Amino acid sequence: MIDTLNNEDTICAISTPAGMGGIAVIRVSGADALTTVSRCWHGAALSGMKSHTAHLGRIIDPADGSLLDEVVLTLFRTPHSFTGEDVIEISCHGSRWIQQELVNLLIRCGCRAATGGEFTRRAFSNGRLDLSQAEAVADVIASSSRASHRIAMSQMRGDFSRELSNLREQLLHFVSLMELELDFSEEEVEFADRSHLIALAEQIHGVVKRLTESFAVGNAIKNGLPVAIVGETNAGKSTLLNYLLHDDRALVSDIHGTTRDVIEDTITLGGTLYRFIDTAGIRDTADRIEAMGIERTFSKMSQAQIVLWVIDGTTPVTAIEPLAARILPIVAPGNHLIAVINKADLLTEAQHSALRQTLTTLLPTGTPTVSISARERTNLDELQAALQAAATLPEADDAVIVTNARHYQALTHAGEAIVRAIDGLRQGISGDFVSQDIRECMHYLGEITGEITPTHILTTIFQHFCIGK
Amino acid sequence: MIDTLNNEDTICAISTPAGMGGIAVIRVSGADALTTVSRCWHGAALSGMKSHTAHLGRIIDPADGSLLDEVVLTLFRTPHSFTGEDVIEISCHGSRWIQQELVNLLIRCGCRAATGGEFTRRAFSNGRLDLSQAEAVADVIASSSRASHRIAMSQMRGDFSRELSNLREQLLHFVSLMELELDFSEEEVEFADRSHLIALAEQIHGVVKRLTESFAVGNAIKNGLPVAIVGETNAGKSTLLNYLLHDDRALVSDIHGTTRDVIEDTITLGGTLYRFIDTAGIRDTADRIEAMGIERTFSKMSQAQIVLWVIDGTTPVTAIEPLAARILPIVAPGNHLIAVINKADLLTEAQHSALRQTLTTLLPTGTPTVSISARERTNLDELQAALQAAATLPEADDAVIVTNARHYQALTHAGEAIVRAIDGLRQGISGDFVSQDIRECMHYLGEITGEITPTHILTTIFQHFCIGK
Repeated sequence: MIDTLNNEDTICAISTPAGMGGIAVIRVSGADALTTVSRCWHGAALSGMKSHTAHLGRIIDPADGSLLDEVVLTLFRTPHSFTGEDVIEISCHGSRWIQQELVNLLIRCGCRAATGGEFTRRAFSNGRLDLSQAEAVADVIASSSRASHRIAMSQMRGDFSRELSNLREQLLHFVSLMELELDFSEEEVEFADRSHLIALAEQIHGVVKRLTESFAVGNAIKNGLPVAIVGETNAGKSTLLNYLLHDDRALVSDIHGTTRDVIEDTITLGGTLYRFIDTAGIRDTADRIEAMGIERTFSKMSQAQIVLWVIDGTTPVTAIEPLAARILPIVAPGNHLIAVINKADLLTEAQHSALRQTLTTLLPTGTPTVSISARERTNLDELQAALQAAATLPEADDAVIVTNARHYQALTHAGEAIVRAIDGLRQGISGDFVSQDIRECMHYLGEITGEITPTHILTTIFQHFCIGK
Repeated sequence: MIDTLNNEDTICAISTPAGMGGIAVIRVSGADALTTVSRCWHGAALSGMKSHTAHLGRIIDPADGSLLDEVVLTLFRTPHSFTGEDVIEISCHGSRWIQQELVNLLIRCGCRAATGGEFTRRAFSNGRLDLSQAEAVADVIASSSRASHRIAMSQMRGDFSRELSNLREQLLHFVSLMELELDFSEEEVEFADRSHLIALAEQIHGVVKRLTESFAVGNAIKNGLPVAIVGETNAGKSTLLNYLLHDDRALVSDIHGTTRDVIEDTITLGGTLYRFIDTAGIRDTADRIEAMGIERTFSKMSQAQIVLWVIDGTTPVTAIEPLAARILPIVAPGNHLIAVINKADLLTEAQHSALRQTLTTLLPTGTPTVSISARERTNLDELQAALQAAATLPEADDAVIVTNARHYQALTHAGEAIVRAIDGLRQGISGDFVSQDIRECMHYLGEITGEITPTHILTTIFQHFCIGK
């Protein structure tokens, strides 16, 4: 597949995370990388530099001779680089100002600012990676749990591509036999035994089906198991979320109704990625912003796999039943409910056991109930254990797992085509039509690896990459 | 100066900014860098690698053989590295998960997690940088304007150190003459002409004084010119601040009083760093959180050099006078006031000119008044121009500028000592005492470059560095 994007420009971008750090790396790639960078580089001559060597030098603005930074420059000569082109990586001091000025300077020296994913797109265009591998680069970068990392790394290294390539080879063999028959159709020869072909098609269908079905797991692994945190206002939901996120994201105060919006963030516990959804407190409110938040709470609930109902332990026991009457109906049928008694540190033992007893009568049998103090950070381990018990994510084995919606869609179409081919073979319809279905199946598999992917699809894919990769 | 910190461990840290990016760099430094990293590195043998070469390879956990990432490793052999020790930089995919796991893996392989600034501290301990240069590394990283960057870069490259070294040499010459006299004191010889010595001491004092005084400028350049944004609730302060910050930091809504806290952020306009301070709306309020915010508004006002009074242009002209009566008294005497008529897009020409006329009668003569629409982003260039006109920051020339409070303090003490020496010389007191003052002056200058800085001071200095530098 020839990518028709303009690959003649020499591009540059900050490749390290945005922000301030000890160092940052600016990457330059393209046929003119050496010429361009040499306009602002003072150090060993780039032309004489060996590939894969690092050099200390200075970046100086040729316009006014001002020193921008002392840097380490590493050269990767074509084709032995990530993109396959001449690549220069400039490791500068990690001030935001230097990073931005260095990019500006490189642009003045003749580079173009890279678009999102453009380095990886060039690696794809230059045949260094196929499309599913290129997409996996973005997934490797975004992965935030052991499982999602393992899947993305396996895909980037080509495990998925090899599986697809096997499938396409089998399909090609299949279609060749079918089409050979068509060439000799007047002689009514059957080069391929129909039952043998059906068996082969069913085998292929089995693999496509397994890959398609793996997406349900793959998607949860990649995007996190959704966990909704609900409860009355002031029960301590934000404090709990903050603890779980080890972060001060949400505004926490002792005035009711301060969490005005749905806050989502992900965290990895014990190798599983959770997507936590803090919600506006459930209460009647005349506040416009808050009312919007509560509406969103309800819509988020149905998407959650786990629901944490946070209960203010100091609530009078008599007030628990009406509360439960409001909360429990919004827990969707598929949700795992966990009851969390917060502020347990403020309760006497008698109060505590009365509350637990009340909850036992109100909650579905077997609902785990954990007593914590979010503020004092006590007993949170138990809560984490309850979460992990409720996380029914199947462990990914070494089989290829599909995590990409685009791949899922292509595999679904490929599966439909192969099913039509099987039906056709069974009904003994003309090889013409069967061959057409098999070619369609191959087409969809080829879309995944980028062999037959139109430029506008490539553009859509790579625009979601971060800039600098 | 020997730094007594334990330099025997091999240390590691993420050196690039925190977060997700295309790539990230993990830095390892220490005598055992090669041995340690080779435990998880699969690629060319580290022992045979030349300094300043980059190699593609894989990071594999020796415990379970799992592949963590495909990386580029660059080796800098002692003493030709930033720290002066063997340094390995591992450029990995920039997922947060990979970065953290790689650090964990390196620690399992024998590294210790570096403390803040520990790489730079080792560069100092190993004589690669003096202390003021090492401190400038942090300033270079933190610099966010052309001026602060230029000062920090000059300091890192040793301009300040050379100036101090000149001073110390002159002082050493001075004190040698004084002490030679003391050795021959019974013979009442005067090796040094007193008036000549006084002239020399005054010259040194002049340099110390210039450096000390440069701190006022240096501090504003480094930390930003404070600009307070004040005005009635709902005048559009947050929208304006967001525009200025190109960011969605502050919560913006059409309900009064949503900016409940003081938000501070810095932005560079035309090479000048401003520190913007958004403030709670000025109104009587019963809301506790908001009341706290308003209190802080008043305290922030007095620190601001520039005050932007944002006026809701749709306010009836008759209501402007009472508003001004509340706002103007809190503008501190040294503040530059700029009146900003917001929502100008909603006004007829007649309304607009009536409002401007009213303001002219109320505001101090010469107060710049700018009409904008923060929401429509119109006329904001004019506002930026008014800001820049009010920014009376002296342009830094090529002279050394002190930006560091520790240096300022040491220079102040050095100046006091040299003044005592001058007084002593003038009063003809014993060379003993004069020599003592000169030695004290040298001591304080030596503290700046780290020649005589105790370990606990070094620890304080480097703990403010980011980890990984």
